[in-house]
Amino acid sequence: MTEPINIAVIGSGYWGPNLIRNIAMLPEARLHTVCDLNPKALEQNARRYPGVHTTPHFDTVLKDPEVCGVILATPASKHAEMALAVLDAGKHVMVEKPLAMSSQEALLLIEKAEANKLILMAGHVFEFNPAVIALRDLVQRGDLGRILYLYSARVNLGIIRDDLNVMWNLAPHDFSILNFVLRAAPQAVSARGFCLLGRDLEDVAFITVEYPGNIVAHVHVSWLDPNKTRRMTVVGDAKMAVYDDVSQDERIRIYDKGVMRDSIPDLYGEFRLVTRFGDVHIPNLPTTEPLRAECAHFVECIRTGQRPISDGVDGYRVVRMLEAAQQSMQRDGLPMQLGLER
Amino acid sequence: MTEPINIAVIGSGYWGPNLIRNIAMLPEARLHTVCDLNPKALEQNARRYPGVHTTPHFDTVLKDPEVCGVILATPASKHAEMALAVLDAGKHVMVEKPLAMSSQEALLLIEKAEANKLILMAGHVFEFNPAVIALRDLVQRGDLGRILYLYSARVNLGIIRDDLNVMWNLAPHDFSILNFVLRAAPQAVSARGFCLLGRDLEDVAFITVEYPGNIVAHVHVSWLDPNKTRRMTVVGDAKMAVYDDVSQDERIRIYDKGVMRDSIPDLYGEFRLVTRFGDVHIPNLPTTEPLRAECAHFVECIRTGQRPISDGVDGYRVVRMLEAAQQSMQRDGLPMQLGLER
Amino acid sequence: MTEPINIAVIGSGYWGPNLIRNIAMLPEARLHTVCDLNPKALEQNARRYPGVHTTPHFDTVLKDPEVCGVILATPASKHAEMALAVLDAGKHVMVEKPLAMSSQEALLLIEKAEANKLILMAGHVFEFNPAVIALRDLVQRGDLGRILYLYSARVNLGIIRDDLNVMWNLAPHDFSILNFVLRAAPQAVSARGFCLLGRDLEDVAFITVEYPGNIVAHVHVSWLDPNKTRRMTVVGDAKMAVYDDVSQDERIRIYDKGVMRDSIPDLYGEFRLVTRFGDVHIPNLPTTEPLRAECAHFVECIRTGQRPISDGVDGYRVVRMLEAAQQSMQRDGLPMQLGLER
Amino acid sequence: MTEPINIAVIGSGYWGPNLIRNIAMLPEARLHTVCDLNPKALEQNARRYPGVHTTPHFDTVLKDPEVCGVILATPASKHAEMALAVLDAGKHVMVEKPLAMSSQEALLLIEKAEANKLILMAGHVFEFNPAVIALRDLVQRGDLGRILYLYSARVNLGIIRDDLNVMWNLAPHDFSILNFVLRAAPQAVSARGFCLLGRDLEDVAFITVEYPGNIVAHVHVSWLDPNKTRRMTVVGDAKMAVYDDVSQDERIRIYDKGVMRDSIPDLYGEFRLVTRFGDVHIPNLPTTEPLRAECAHFVECIRTGQRPISDGVDGYRVVRMLEAAQQSMQRDGLPMQLGLER
Repeated sequence: MTEPINIAVIGSGYWGPNLIRNIAMLPEARLHTVCDLNPKALEQNARRYPGVHTTPHFDTVLKDPEVCGVILATPASKHAEMALAVLDAGKHVMVEKPLAMSSQEALLLIEKAEANKLILMAGHVFEFNPAVIALRDLVQRGDLGRILYLYSARVNLGIIRDDLNVMWNLAPHDFSILNFVLRAAPQAVSARGFCLLGRDLEDVAFITVEYPGNIVAHVHVSWLDPNKTRRMTVVGDAKMAVYDDVSQDERIRIYDKGVMRDSIPDLYGEFRLVTRFGDVHIPNLPTTEPLRAECAHFVECIRTGQRPISDGVDGYRVVRMLEAAQQSMQRDGLPMQLGLER
Repeated sequence: MTEPINIAVIGSGYWGPNLIRNIAMLPEARLHTVCDLNPKALEQNARRYPGVHTTPHFDTVLKDPEVCGVILATPASKHAEMALAVLDAGKHVMVEKPLAMSSQEALLLIEKAEANKLILMAGHVFEFNPAVIALRDLVQRGDLGRILYLYSARVNLGIIRDDLNVMWNLAPHDFSILNFVLRAAPQAVSARGFCLLGRDLEDVAFITVEYPGNIVAHVHVSWLDPNKTRRMTVVGDAKMAVYDDVSQDERIRIYDKGVMRDSIPDLYGEFRLVTRFGDVHIPNLPTTEPLRAECAHFVECIRTGQRPISDGVDGYRVVRMLEAAQQSMQRDGLPMQLGLER
Repeated sequence: MTEPINIAVIGSGYWGPNLIRNIAMLPEARLHTVCDLNPKALEQNARRYPGVHTTPHFDTVLKDPEVCGVILATPASKHAEMALAVLDAGKHVMVEKPLAMSSQEALLLIEKAEANKLILMAGHVFEFNPAVIALRDLVQRGDLGRILYLYSARVNLGIIRDDLNVMWNLAPHDFSILNFVLRAAPQAVSARGFCLLGRDLEDVAFITVEYPGNIVAHVHVSWLDPNKTRRMTVVGDAKMAVYDDVSQDERIRIYDKGVMRDSIPDLYGEFRLVTRFGDVHIPNLPTTEPLRAECAHFVECIRTGQRPISDGVDGYRVVRMLEAAQQSMQRDGLPMQLGLER
Repeated sequence: MTEPINIAVIGSGYWGPNLIRNIAMLPEARLHTVCDLNPKALEQNARRYPGVHTTPHFDTVLKDPEVCGVILATPASKHAEMALAVLDAGKHVMVEKPLAMSSQEALLLIEKAEANKLILMAGHVFEFNPAVIALRDLVQRGDLGRILYLYSARVNLGIIRDDLNVMWNLAPHDFSILNFVLRAAPQAVSARGFCLLGRDLEDVAFITVEYPGNIVAHVHVSWLDPNKTRRMTVVGDAKMAVYDDVSQDERIRIYDKGVMRDSIPDLYGEFRLVTRFGDVHIPNLPTTEPLRAECAHFVECIRTGQRPISDGVDGYRVVRMLEAAQQSMQRDGLPMQLGLER
């Protein structure tokens, strides 16, 4: 076995500790440095992970020749700037979602990573979730038939951010899942968002995404809800599936249900649409922890040079969708073309 | 006790038989006539309800001096024209939802009923549903605090109509419930709808309704879904409630949860929003059958001359919302003002 | 098509009206007579089913040559005596569960029916339930492997009888399902029962039934429970299944789970037992109404002379189990041999 | 603040690591030593908890004057002997359930602890579970009225032990919860147990426990079940409650339901029992981790000398119940008197 790869994690606030813990557990990686402005956070990490370097100075990390890859778990507004600095310092970088706060910045990151031949990975953790992978396989194998539409709800009473609205906070997950499951880039997006808590930040948003082939997706995000819901329904013309991330044992349910034309035409020679009911199937899924798989994938990409599953382009698309949806919100739901197709 | 009131039911297709059965069971009413073009339907009713008159001719009903009230369960496209004829014939009328296919027609019906001093009632059955009444009481008593937003889902794999799109078919229920629960007329509506089954009729729609006081409601209707869902969530700034019509025992759940300002300002003198978790309460509800209550209310209004709970204005508002939402759909979600405020 | 068969229903109290309604709807049968001591019940039936004969006199039914089959929905204490009278009168009989209050009486009925060449059917309605039939097929086809054990719960806050204890009231269902699903006669039974409401009748009972092949079943019945539960779990050595009669869409769930020996022996050369997790499958079931199927089967047996699925022997076995379980209860759970094997 | 108390944990197999982690996190305690026969387990603990002593020799722990309290997470067959040695060495001891494999041994431990003025605590973790505490308070405050009966299910497809049968493995939890919630010592126990996997160990057991005041409890334990279930239902004559440990948000549900006498006597001057349906209430519970609270309680008892909530007598009672239930099983369910009343 080769040497473990030295990783620095920047940001040990709400989400950072999960990344730190996973990197520390990976045999292929070494948690080299934790960087945070908060001295208490550094102290805790030093106690918990004997041997780790801690520093409040981002520059120290950038200059440390031992650090090979950097994971950014800083506030979203800092993602682009800091990721650029990491790439400039010649280090690989994984950036928590969203990759940037504008598509222009995201494109800059892609270019820089390509120019410097470095790994740029977006922290789209759901692309490493066994249930999402199973859903993608169902869709891509054609088990559900032609996909007609999808809808997703990501709502609960959770942390209410004051630096991002609910869409920028939660919808990156839905957008990355949709692109991943459909293996497609969306064409247009429209959104309605509402500020309910007397601030200038949307607390609930309803977003419609249009994909090639007349596939429509709808996303509802909110941090004001009595019930924690993370559910996506995929309706195909052959079967339907529901992915419920809150369920303990039954994350994917496949319904052999649908609509078909009646076999016999009616009096007027027309075929009526009739519903068809069949069995439900709940596949057993691997119990892999998504975040661990994500961290392992970053380290693996560094080692092999392979392109990450959630690469810069993937991160860019999600940012582009957020950006356009934000514009649509400000125009009361006017659909915005995305220009992502190639 | 006074004489039972003679009621004729027009239309004995899918929904009509339920109205017929309920009228037949009411002690205050007499099922006088069933009218349908289908001779088989008439025959079945004659057998099941000995003594009932049956006729394929609507005119026969209109001319029969014994008939006092008429219930229309005919295709939606016929509602306005037939209701007008009933009112012209000097008889009270209850019309299945939607009251009409245009707001102009609905206004005509209101005028005619007022001019002729007759009852005009819209068949908004959910306004007679004990759970909806409980939800309205929660909201109107202020138990949930100031209402922030509501959202509703009415989806399943059900009958796919070919004379109406899914919004005209299902959303009248959500719209009438919203207006009833909020006791308010909406100001604007926007909608996105999608034709998924290769016809020129929307099979799924997402509708946003704006009420006075910055209250927002969202409605999702679809007849392509693996799971039957009839659920409305109401988020207030004090508590939250969920009305789940599919649940057998727990149709209303009240969550003592919410968001509040932290009691102590942070370093920058600002108050953070923090979440608050409390008990859940599930009230026991009366087991009244909504349709029976609706039918009894129609008969009671005829007897006493009182204005129906779901009167013509109520029916008109729902039609106006549908009409405007349809226009919004055709303009890719452009919000439409409703002009319903007085 | 041949003439409909004339059926009389005796008893129109709590359950009788369901039988009456189903007989009235069957094209192969004619609801000839309803007999009840309560004049109000007779009146209601006369109004609801024009043309039906009504009488308070059981004898009138027995003597009526037009009546071909009789359904007994009278109190359990009258079942045996009245069924004997019906058979003596040369008429076929279906008896609500339990067939009798003692196994001796049940045997008498079997003998009489055989001697008179008449149909004797026990009203074990669950043997006509599509979910129970699916469960039986799963077990009998061997899909679950060798059956290890079963357990059943039939509890809720329901009608509290004062003529029967909870076991005699509810457990006939579980016993008939067990015998039907396993296609076997049990060998022994033990039971513990408790009088909780200050009467001399058990309100809750726990019963253990032993079948050939070391198969064990456990039944919990109670009419004091906050949640309506009608659920049976079947554990096989290959798969497991749960039948939940309260579920609307998912009455049967098949779990591809189990225990197996580890493939590699441990240090001591022993094989450890390890658990195995796989998919869950929920078959789509026919929507047949069980009671309708039961009534149709009785009429069909009369017409063809075929032996009913739930014949006298089936009814006898259940009575024998109840009788022995009652004796066990009175001996604080002493197992009682049943002597049913042939 | 005083010095942290030095704790040694013996056994770092399946459950031990949880105790080790909790002791390590407690500010009032210091994880002084981990003892295990497996060198790998010791090595892992040494890495994870820098500064901890590790040893394969139980004697080393006993002789170490720095160790103040010992937690035993060894196989059940060793509990009594090792706990005695700890008490003999003048150290406090917390023993994982069951406290011993015979009531005689348990009594010896109680005597020894009293003689040496040392803490003896049974590791009945559910007595530190917020939901169980809430249930106890409901019962003890009389909110449910007079308790009529309770039943508990602890089943799933889990680890299948080869040193203990399912009852000795799982039922200590149910027994300790029952005694704790009812604040009473049971009078008698009966049990039926079945060996389904071809070994000489019961894999499923049904146990009936009788408490003073005619309160009955039933416990079903199994490690062969498709669904993980940890649920206890408590039926009082005023209200009912369900404690579901598998639920994420709704561990306790209180049902305002019950049975009452009809207000008006019937024709024969008798009062019928009628059911009463009311609201359901789901209290919000503290999110304390039970095992952490248990560990903190042990340390607190050492410091203050107070008697543990789950003291030796508590542990003895559970062992006595297990012992008697085992005897009952071997006599096919013969009820065994416990002799626990004082």
